[in-house]
Amino acid sequence: MRSKSDTSSDGIKLSFRLHTLELRHQFTIASGSRKTTPVIITSLEYGGWTGYGEASMPPYMGESHDTASSFLSTLDLSRFKNPFLFDDILGYVDNHRPGNYAAKAAVDIALHDLYGKISGFPVYRMYGLNPDATPFTSFTIGIDTPEALRQKVSEAGPYRILKVKLGGNNDREMIGVIRSATDKPLCADVNQGWKDKFFALEMAHWLYEKGVIFLEQPLPKEYVEETAWLREKSPIPIIGDEAVRGLADLIKFKDIYSGINVKLMKCGGI
Amino acid sequence: MRSKSDTSSDGIKLSFRLHTLELRHQFTIASGSRKTTPVIITSLEYGGWTGYGEASMPPYMGESHDTASSFLSTLDLSRFKNPFLFDDILGYVDNHRPGNYAAKAAVDIALHDLYGKISGFPVYRMYGLNPDATPFTSFTIGIDTPEALRQKVSEAGPYRILKVKLGGNNDREMIGVIRSATDKPLCADVNQGWKDKFFALEMAHWLYEKGVIFLEQPLPKEYVEETAWLREKSPIPIIGDEAVRGLADLIKFKDIYSGINVKLMKCGGI
Repeated sequence: MRSKSDTSSDGIKLSFRLHTLELRHQFTIASGSRKTTPVIITSLEYGGWTGYGEASMPPYMGESHDTASSFLSTLDLSRFKNPFLFDDILGYVDNHRPGNYAAKAAVDIALHDLYGKISGFPVYRMYGLNPDATPFTSFTIGIDTPEALRQKVSEAGPYRILKVKLGGNNDREMIGVIRSATDKPLCADVNQGWKDKFFALEMAHWLYEKGVIFLEQPLPKEYVEETAWLREKSPIPIIGDEAVRGLADLIKFKDIYSGINVKLMKCGGI
Repeated sequence: MRSKSDTSSDGIKLSFRLHTLELRHQFTIASGSRKTTPVIITSLEYGGWTGYGEASMPPYMGESHDTASSFLSTLDLSRFKNPFLFDDILGYVDNHRPGNYAAKAAVDIALHDLYGKISGFPVYRMYGLNPDATPFTSFTIGIDTPEALRQKVSEAGPYRILKVKLGGNNDREMIGVIRSATDKPLCADVNQGWKDKFFALEMAHWLYEKGVIFLEQPLPKEYVEETAWLREKSPIPIIGDEAVRGLADLIKFKDIYSGINVKLMKCGGI
């Protein structure tokens, strides 16, 4: 226990502020381009401590500054006089309104930060995890011109794995350019950009030959049977992203996808 | 963090001792009677701290002083220099040998106790739980004579819920005697003692009228279709116990039982 108080009769105080991240490069995926990402920074204050969280809201996920502000404004955490009651606090947040996953995740993250600050322990200790066994993350490269791709591969120097966005009109060229610049493991993410399962299967074989280790959301999320067919025949795993949001989706799609892209902004927190 | 050291270059030291609990009353269930229960007390020492755990091994679960001693003797926890790496430590214990669930649970419990002692926090805080919302536990009354039943109901004064063992030759008489002595909620546990689904359904209706809130493992664990049939028609929930041990059983029987009796000794720990 640190020196400040770990009790407060006023309960937990939530506040937030809006911010817009300016991207260094325009970022293009199958469904569109952007140069900014809206985020919300959350703070939870309790007994002299402050925990911080963040909601990142890429537009294709359906949340925005407006929806997150509206959701967070109606949360009353002052009723919680003990910040360690995760089950109660996050249960209240989850049940307060449906959806709003990124906003919920921003509260969840701030609560974990507050836990760490009050207890003096890193959060991985709470979950009994070994920090030396943390998996590597990947650096994402959007759809772009050959010159820009080469520049981005060079900027991704510290990352061991690259994720390449496909589903534009130059998929093979993009992989070719990136492969000529690096032999790092690649993942391919189509963001639902292909509409034909035969084309997707042909691409899966071609990507396998190019050293791509998995193929993410190649077909629209509604193409359930087509995706099962593709997974059955594909030489590389087919990973679900947009199709799988909460636990119910996980159960529904367990035999359709080989694996899932788990994102805190999608499922509401840790 | 308390004042003793939370590091040790010697790693975690496991020791254990055997003990036999003498029961106040003979305890009878459908499969047999006993007056003792073998237990093993485990200790995990680390950095001057000691955490304690316990394995309780009622004979019908298949573990004993011998099997648990044999399992625990071959565990080497000295390789773990940090007791907070639950994932690594318990992963090693789980994968060391199949089975031995009670012995594994005794290590798991001692590790949680050690966590609490070193961190200075109760374990419920690790899991973000509200201690004021702890569910009530039940007091179990074995198969017995009317006089003994009345005595046991009287000794169970502090408990809000009673669990009655059935599957002997005086099921209706037992419930009648207990009901005449108390109006507390009752659960009925048959421990696989009934062999006929029609009889089980008749009893389920009769028990429902007597204010029994659920019926546990009425049929042998191999009677899968019969249990599904019973659950479909029963006015009270059918709970699985002996049939459901680990996660794989949970998935296998998810549509067969209404719910599950979760025991640390059955599934290897928290």
